[in-house]
Amino acid sequence: MEPVLFYGVPHGCSFGSIVALEWLGQPYRLCRIDMLAKTESETFGGVSPLGETPALLLEDGRPLVESFAIMQNIVARGRDGRFAQGSAEFDRLNSVLAYLHTTFHSAFSPAWTAYKLAEDDPNREVLRALAREKAARSYAHLQDMMADREWLAGDTKTVADAYFIGIARWGEDLGLFDLSREYPGLHKHIRKLEADLGVIFAHAIEDETPATSSGGFLGHVTLAELERRVAA
Amino acid sequence: MEPVLFYGVPHGCSFGSIVALEWLGQPYRLCRIDMLAKTESETFGGVSPLGETPALLLEDGRPLVESFAIMQNIVARGRDGRFAQGSAEFDRLNSVLAYLHTTFHSAFSPAWTAYKLAEDDPNREVLRALAREKAARSYAHLQDMMADREWLAGDTKTVADAYFIGIARWGEDLGLFDLSREYPGLHKHIRKLEADLGVIFAHAIEDETPATSSGGFLGHVTLAELERRVAA
Repeated sequence: MEPVLFYGVPHGCSFGSIVALEWLGQPYRLCRIDMLAKTESETFGGVSPLGETPALLLEDGRPLVESFAIMQNIVARGRDGRFAQGSAEFDRLNSVLAYLHTTFHSAFSPAWTAYKLAEDDPNREVLRALAREKAARSYAHLQDMMADREWLAGDTKTVADAYFIGIARWGEDLGLFDLSREYPGLHKHIRKLEADLGVIFAHAIEDETPATSSGGFLGHVTLAELERRVAA
Repeated sequence: MEPVLFYGVPHGCSFGSIVALEWLGQPYRLCRIDMLAKTESETFGGVSPLGETPALLLEDGRPLVESFAIMQNIVARGRDGRFAQGSAEFDRLNSVLAYLHTTFHSAFSPAWTAYKLAEDDPNREVLRALAREKAARSYAHLQDMMADREWLAGDTKTVADAYFIGIARWGEDLGLFDLSREYPGLHKHIRKLEADLGVIFAHAIEDETPATSSGGFLGHVTLAELERRVAA
């Protein structure tokens, strides 16, 4: 069977893996995981021991966790001679992809911790202020980066843009930023990506509205349907 | 000129890049950056725009930032047919390396923020407790992972072990854990790595005590010596 991506809702960072698979254009399936429901599934636990998404079940039955590793796997499938190990292009892609997965992603972490606290918990505002301070530095850095290029890793659309668009929205989701006003240069890149067919598709998948694939999407599979495959 | 690694002291995550370069066995140089001194150097700014370490100045003058990207560059130099793009080995290495660079590294982030606050700041303990909670989950997960393997990515020593040993120490540096007592299984791996020649070398470099390279270390260079090369 083709690879199956386990993506988390709501608004998880697996959004970027869905977009990257769409852009790749090769057959894949999706399995939806409600992250708030604390899915108690042996099948999912067999793929992702920490219960985290994204996770990728590969053709040969091997599970692969961690967004960065999944992106590397997708790059290896579709590179058409580009982004080869040891090339300057691969270095550049890895540098941006690493920044997004570490500094940018983790900037929001205190605000996600705050999100789970009671409304009147005094620590809430401490954590939200810390997230805003960290994320502001990241938005500014990414805006500077985009000043001289079309896409995050240079002149071509890559998995870095796919991952970016799944995380960049968190600033507004968490009520921390008004991005179009505060980072207009970076917001231009966000708008460009929001008009992309792969991104539109990923939103429709998350929102469970009719989704049209311009890539190789072959439909959803349920955890029950995957049970035998993961056990094997 | 051979690649130059800019490493940060004290106790930065660039420790892992020094170890990885030692293990690679190919010629390299080091440039020491005191992270507390807020180095105002155009040369360093030209290599690392955010002033972060590690950073790698490549043979052809290109700068490369982000530890994960540097590790990928080192893997590409030394893989001897292993860890090729698209291989199961490469997937496995990336998965562990990603976990270490994201979840494990960022677990300590609130405690580093607390470290910079005044002793009597009431937010200090909130942040330290958050870091302890997050890091405890990571130590436990890594200990589980090591239950059935010799090294973090499987049966051979990789850049994942090099990066791990630079971060794992933070739990005790920050006074959050007693690792030998709380995570004895994982502490076994730490002890094994601490006895490694590359790790002993990296400690000596950090501490400015006599350092014996078992790899390709050709000495330190100063920022002044690198000025012409970065400007070129």
